[in-house]
Amino acid sequence: MERSEILLGKYGEEGDRLIFRVLDNGDFMKGVDTSLPSSKIASSISKRAMRYDLTVPFARFVAQHRNDLVFPFKRYQIQPVWRADRPQKGRYQEFYQCDADVIGSESLLHEVEFVQIFDEVFARLGFTSFQVHLNNRKILAGLAEAAGYGDGLGELAIALDKLDKIGPDRVVAEWMERGMPSQAVEVLAPILHEESKRSLEHIRGLIGGTEIGSIGLEEMDDILAQLDSLGLERADVVFDITLARGLDYYTGTIFEVTTDQMAIGSLAGGGRYDDLTATFGLKDMTGVGISFGADRIYDVIEHLGLWPDNLSDAPKVLFVNFGKEEARYAQQWLKSLREAGIACELYPLQSKMKKQMKYADDRGIAYVAMAGSREMEQEVVSLKEMSSGNQQEYGLEALLGLLGIKNP
Amino acid sequence: MERSEILLGKYGEEGDRLIFRVLDNGDFMKGVDTSLPSSKIASSISKRAMRYDLTVPFARFVAQHRNDLVFPFKRYQIQPVWRADRPQKGRYQEFYQCDADVIGSESLLHEVEFVQIFDEVFARLGFTSFQVHLNNRKILAGLAEAAGYGDGLGELAIALDKLDKIGPDRVVAEWMERGMPSQAVEVLAPILHEESKRSLEHIRGLIGGTEIGSIGLEEMDDILAQLDSLGLERADVVFDITLARGLDYYTGTIFEVTTDQMAIGSLAGGGRYDDLTATFGLKDMTGVGISFGADRIYDVIEHLGLWPDNLSDAPKVLFVNFGKEEARYAQQWLKSLREAGIACELYPLQSKMKKQMKYADDRGIAYVAMAGSREMEQEVVSLKEMSSGNQQEYGLEALLGLLGIKNP
Repeated sequence: MERSEILLGKYGEEGDRLIFRVLDNGDFMKGVDTSLPSSKIASSISKRAMRYDLTVPFARFVAQHRNDLVFPFKRYQIQPVWRADRPQKGRYQEFYQCDADVIGSESLLHEVEFVQIFDEVFARLGFTSFQVHLNNRKILAGLAEAAGYGDGLGELAIALDKLDKIGPDRVVAEWMERGMPSQAVEVLAPILHEESKRSLEHIRGLIGGTEIGSIGLEEMDDILAQLDSLGLERADVVFDITLARGLDYYTGTIFEVTTDQMAIGSLAGGGRYDDLTATFGLKDMTGVGISFGADRIYDVIEHLGLWPDNLSDAPKVLFVNFGKEEARYAQQWLKSLREAGIACELYPLQSKMKKQMKYADDRGIAYVAMAGSREMEQEVVSLKEMSSGNQQEYGLEALLGLLGIKNP
Repeated sequence: MERSEILLGKYGEEGDRLIFRVLDNGDFMKGVDTSLPSSKIASSISKRAMRYDLTVPFARFVAQHRNDLVFPFKRYQIQPVWRADRPQKGRYQEFYQCDADVIGSESLLHEVEFVQIFDEVFARLGFTSFQVHLNNRKILAGLAEAAGYGDGLGELAIALDKLDKIGPDRVVAEWMERGMPSQAVEVLAPILHEESKRSLEHIRGLIGGTEIGSIGLEEMDDILAQLDSLGLERADVVFDITLARGLDYYTGTIFEVTTDQMAIGSLAGGGRYDDLTATFGLKDMTGVGISFGADRIYDVIEHLGLWPDNLSDAPKVLFVNFGKEEARYAQQWLKSLREAGIACELYPLQSKMKKQMKYADDRGIAYVAMAGSREMEQEVVSLKEMSSGNQQEYGLEALLGLLGIKNP
């Protein structure tokens, strides 16, 4: 939860509309002019709002704690964010973002390392084919300038960002609606097509003469050269001039990761944001960061069946509950096993054997331990290995040995 | 975020007041009767609310997924909750709870294990003196009955819960305001005092004749006997009849953990809740759980200076940045070290040596690696151990060995 003014105005027009606002408590309607439109009333009755992303609250944090931090400052953060979007497959009103950012360094080394992180993370998750799309807001600004539409970056980007959803014709239509001059439309429309949008050389020809465009191209060249010399495990890195990213605060490199194995939109994204902390009073700081969309990544892992086979949250051993006295005996064993770091349980009730064994089975528990009066007397348990059905007696030390505890 | 109706009415009157509600998006005021009081308007303009605790949303989850879960079902969960309380030391509007619950088993074994968890967690965090307070709502119900105020458990508990804050005299005053009969006040007032509130025998004398009270006493005796035979590492377990817990949903054992090393209120709590899932359509299920208040525990750790000395998030090695070519060389080393699981960084800019060394110092980085043209030619780095100032050359394999990687 953040104070509303921290979030509002940072994510563009559409972002503002999608921010969940928190109603003030108590008699919030007191003194409110109810003849105003809802959007105005909202500001009078809600002082708090839910995080829309992790980046803006992070910039607020950095500005607030500037005197306690060592710069360049790096952090990672995994937390939920909320967006009042229409829920659908791959789009949630509450979802987890996993962010990594560096604030206080203009070095392109960070851009390179973030691409390495994308590569390593998705490769480790078992993705066999995924694309890291790269673009640069400065290249887009150069493009707007070269098209004779120098102050039009915002308008250009808002429509461009929807290309995947609405297609090139409707992007062009939206550009015209938003007042893009027709000679600019003429220059820009061709870049929307598959052949040219991936061609850095084509764009270089268009914008090489603009100062901002040249800087953007230099940055892109440097990043691509570094990645080339370092090598990546599995990611395809592709320049894509149509990558715009909706968020207002990006100023340099922008990233987006997709997989051609599932049509679900971007799985991760990010970019460089100069001076985002300035709105919170910390000037002349540049930052760069990335964000993984955990829920969508989960959806893809589910869809592609990438979960490991041996993923289990089950305890290793279940002690059968034969009654009060036997349960006391088992509790002592639980205590020793748990001290050795072994997850184990005593079935909580003296239910029928069949029910207790079914529980062990349903949970995927590897061993079932049984102890009646004979075992208690001999200070052992009868241990049944569920996969083989084999049963054998163990003292505590032998059991710890079996379960891989070397020096109990 | 939950649908409002999931949360409202589950936490008592005060709880409802403290739930943060989320404003609907769009034209939320349309059709709203603005002559109504704020509390009524809230229901028309907010369909969502923020979690007040983790237990009620968990009960909703269990009811919803009943067919996919194996019962007794255990889970732990660490997430933020929100309360519109007046913020003060130890009281936050947003804070993290760490919960563990079991749903679907009436066994008191769980109560015992939760006390063991309290004991282990606080001992491991370095607390030397802490108290696990135990009571049972059934004992409180028996007390109300024995005092001739059989339906008064709710009223009795609401005021009792404030004892630490307002003292015995004002609890008695509030009981009378809430309409407790004077003969009941006469029976109950004496239990508020230090000598008798900890005396299970005193309470046994008062309520032994009531059915509900006897059941509560039996449960308490069983739990205390089990804890006694198992032994605890460091927790003081104390029966406390004045422990009431404000939350409406508890029906059996209730817990609270405090430390006498700092006056900050409870650090953890919990209890048994029969049939909480029934409000979500899953009947005849009992649950029991505990919750750690992470932020308050953090406050105590801070206050008592319990953080470990060697707590560091610093990378192990910083590579000095001597320029473009040297940085490329360092990047290859970073790649190898990171593949071996060693956290390391290249200083991102070619800043003055002094500035780069100061960064290493400020971050508490153990080793600084330097490589100029000579080292690059010989495929080594000059490594400076920051604590001793010693400097020596290492090839990659030797460096991995130094950093504890056995078979690079």
